[in-house]
Amino acid sequence: MYKSEQLAHNLRLLIDNGTWPAHSKLPSLRQQAQSSGYSLMTVMNAYQELEAQGLIYAKEKSGYFVAEHLSTQVPQTYSVVSLNPKIEINSQVFKYLKSTQHQQIVPLGSAFPDHQLLCPSKLIQIMGQLARNRKNYEQSSNLPPGNFALRQLIAQRYCMQGITTDADDIVITSGCLDALNLSLQAITQPGDYILLQQTIFYGAWQAAERLGLKVITIPEHPQHGFDLEAFEQVIQSYPIKVCWFMLNAHNPIGFTVSDEIKYKIAKLLHQHQIHLIEDDVYEELFYGSKKPLPMKYFDQQNLVLHCSSFSKTLGAGFRVGWVYAGKFSEHIQHLQLMSTISANSLIQNALVEFLSHHHYEKHLRGLRRSLEKHKKQFYLYLKQHLPVGCEIFNYASGYFLWIKLPDHVNSIEIYEDLLEQHIGVTPSPLFNILQSQQHFLRINCSFEWHSDIAHALDQLSQSIQNHLKLRQITHSA
Amino acid sequence: MYKSEQLAHNLRLLIDNGTWPAHSKLPSLRQQAQSSGYSLMTVMNAYQELEAQGLIYAKEKSGYFVAEHLSTQVPQTYSVVSLNPKIEINSQVFKYLKSTQHQQIVPLGSAFPDHQLLCPSKLIQIMGQLARNRKNYEQSSNLPPGNFALRQLIAQRYCMQGITTDADDIVITSGCLDALNLSLQAITQPGDYILLQQTIFYGAWQAAERLGLKVITIPEHPQHGFDLEAFEQVIQSYPIKVCWFMLNAHNPIGFTVSDEIKYKIAKLLHQHQIHLIEDDVYEELFYGSKKPLPMKYFDQQNLVLHCSSFSKTLGAGFRVGWVYAGKFSEHIQHLQLMSTISANSLIQNALVEFLSHHHYEKHLRGLRRSLEKHKKQFYLYLKQHLPVGCEIFNYASGYFLWIKLPDHVNSIEIYEDLLEQHIGVTPSPLFNILQSQQHFLRINCSFEWHSDIAHALDQLSQSIQNHLKLRQITHSA
Repeated sequence: MYKSEQLAHNLRLLIDNGTWPAHSKLPSLRQQAQSSGYSLMTVMNAYQELEAQGLIYAKEKSGYFVAEHLSTQVPQTYSVVSLNPKIEINSQVFKYLKSTQHQQIVPLGSAFPDHQLLCPSKLIQIMGQLARNRKNYEQSSNLPPGNFALRQLIAQRYCMQGITTDADDIVITSGCLDALNLSLQAITQPGDYILLQQTIFYGAWQAAERLGLKVITIPEHPQHGFDLEAFEQVIQSYPIKVCWFMLNAHNPIGFTVSDEIKYKIAKLLHQHQIHLIEDDVYEELFYGSKKPLPMKYFDQQNLVLHCSSFSKTLGAGFRVGWVYAGKFSEHIQHLQLMSTISANSLIQNALVEFLSHHHYEKHLRGLRRSLEKHKKQFYLYLKQHLPVGCEIFNYASGYFLWIKLPDHVNSIEIYEDLLEQHIGVTPSPLFNILQSQQHFLRINCSFEWHSDIAHALDQLSQSIQNHLKLRQITHSA
Repeated sequence: MYKSEQLAHNLRLLIDNGTWPAHSKLPSLRQQAQSSGYSLMTVMNAYQELEAQGLIYAKEKSGYFVAEHLSTQVPQTYSVVSLNPKIEINSQVFKYLKSTQHQQIVPLGSAFPDHQLLCPSKLIQIMGQLARNRKNYEQSSNLPPGNFALRQLIAQRYCMQGITTDADDIVITSGCLDALNLSLQAITQPGDYILLQQTIFYGAWQAAERLGLKVITIPEHPQHGFDLEAFEQVIQSYPIKVCWFMLNAHNPIGFTVSDEIKYKIAKLLHQHQIHLIEDDVYEELFYGSKKPLPMKYFDQQNLVLHCSSFSKTLGAGFRVGWVYAGKFSEHIQHLQLMSTISANSLIQNALVEFLSHHHYEKHLRGLRRSLEKHKKQFYLYLKQHLPVGCEIFNYASGYFLWIKLPDHVNSIEIYEDLLEQHIGVTPSPLFNILQSQQHFLRINCSFEWHSDIAHALDQLSQSIQNHLKLRQITHSA
């Protein structure tokens, strides 16, 4: 290992002093081995080391190239993350998700809105009616791309936002995660570069790991949610194949990116011909008067695959989502036939009935009002009771509050503390594998105010307080 | 390319003449390059060529080894198949499946039993009742591994066959294909060897391709369905990680392998510590008095992952399957949380109600009787009307007949002929990518006898007749 480190160091000097400028090709492994006298294996290790440091990048069948070397010019705001099985994103996530399933727990760690707010009576009534008719169970009309009438109704909702869409653009999936995974699989090959937001739904990390992608992340912008400058730096330095972003009612933080920034993102995507997988599963949960535009709105070249579902508005148990697949429709259907085949036929039929009579709009209006009201109650209580040094990120959408804990209070310790008291919360490592982001918590605020909730939030404050005290004691000791 | 072929030829001589005996290690790529004077790339190509020919095999991190070289001793009855995107298994399958979806088509190419026979009234009644209650839609209790009561009921069915099982062994999935895919993903790494039956459900090929596995196939035994001798040869020659077999009411051929052979397969699996993914989705569709035993019955070491579903007995639109995962349960749940998350909650609840009151057994008895009756009618008609030179494989289970066409009559041509007349059938390349297996057809015989069916079978006979005549004319010309 020593030899390869030495070689990597020498090569780095050549990059740093400009002998090898950005985007120039490095000598091939064999050339390098011959000229340096090192073995092929040593050269390979050195190159991989430089790649992991973000100094060079690989292009399939073309060899290695020098990356834009930003660290000497401007602070490097993005991270190159090496994924490997040791990180065990999945085991960690599994543990958290399992812990939210216990019946006795106060479910502030849940990812789903309070079930009482979902599954409207009208939909239940329709389900009850349709469930009695055998023909609604037939598979035949529900193979990929899914129920035609449902796809038409979904297409109409895009049209209402000014996005030209017809039923053939839409593919019905088994929920939004299925849509996201199928989209990523359709677009990438192992070894491709993917750009993620630094804080993001864990499913994105898992998918990237599973498909053997190289991950680069950009941090969130403290004011705008999305850091355009970092984005531009990365796509100029790396051959990014695809981005996976959430820009409306971001999970877990909550921000919604402005139309102006979205327009600029779209322009850069087009310029560099980069695909975007847009996770927009909270698109309907805005509190303002106008539904935020998806990136799909700004997409003139079919680069955006927009994914969403009914899971956060009608109930996750339905397992019906979709992707605006456009020209990727057939490819995604291929992938479906090899995996989940289709969503449930009865439920697709019931959704057709429910959506076509405007019941959905009415339900959404009530749901938004309730979520806004509940979240406000949580916010006011937390603002009053959380210890000094905590910061609450509160945005006008969704049902999550994102809480920054005082420096050095570890969110996993708080999570474990509360779990013992049968209270669930979600610690930030679920959304971020960087070590620097361990002191945030996500709180599900969709529940109607109740003394149990107040008690749980009191316990949260108390736990943070205890950890602060503990820290003071250890420091003064 | 010429150089690597020459090198491969030279190396082959060393293997053939016994200089390098079976299971001996080949020189490393670098050693070989140094001693032969060829470039590393040439050596690599030559080794890959030999690997594709089945003469050597790779072990992770250990290099290449000489395979059992059987071709000079006994006829080699298995095939090493190189999968690559060029084969486009998937596009072919996609085309066939799409063609069965047209509403006007006589669906003899469908993979599903006639919907009239599925979805019993009692289940529809239960669905109608449960659908009216909001609590049956709740996701919470239906995250992996799925509804507890349903898993208990499924476990009981295993116990009835003498297989010790409890609810924790079972993971509910979105249909059987989901169960099979999750199982394969849990067990394999890219580059592992998988052993498939030569004729098998296309999903197995697709899964192997997607996961980057090396595929070896053994042909079916003409009498017993399963060729034990070929099986033993392969597992002695290759480091097989996992097998994917269907041994009960095999799709598409129809045979059920005897308990004696199953016992011997299990013994060999144990001896070599090879996992088995058992596709047993037709397990309930036997005509005899006793349900055939699954391989799981003979499995003492938790090597078998048994996969099945309700799709072929209650309806594919339900999307509820399961895997007897045993010690792999947690791993499979991890993978589910990254993909399909769960099956639909309402339907799981309805299945609990349906299964726990013995409605399922009653329904199955009727279904088996109908399938047996319908298939017999198809068989008798075809036996009488098919041209000389056709052979019908008819077994006492399931709802498929497998027809061998006269030599040199291509099943794809027949399929395309009939499609123009709005009749669906399934040609053998859907189940077998070997060029030698192009003259078989699968016919779905689950439909009640009807003049349309007779007409469709007449057209089938006529089409084969026409192709035979065409052949005679071209030959005599």
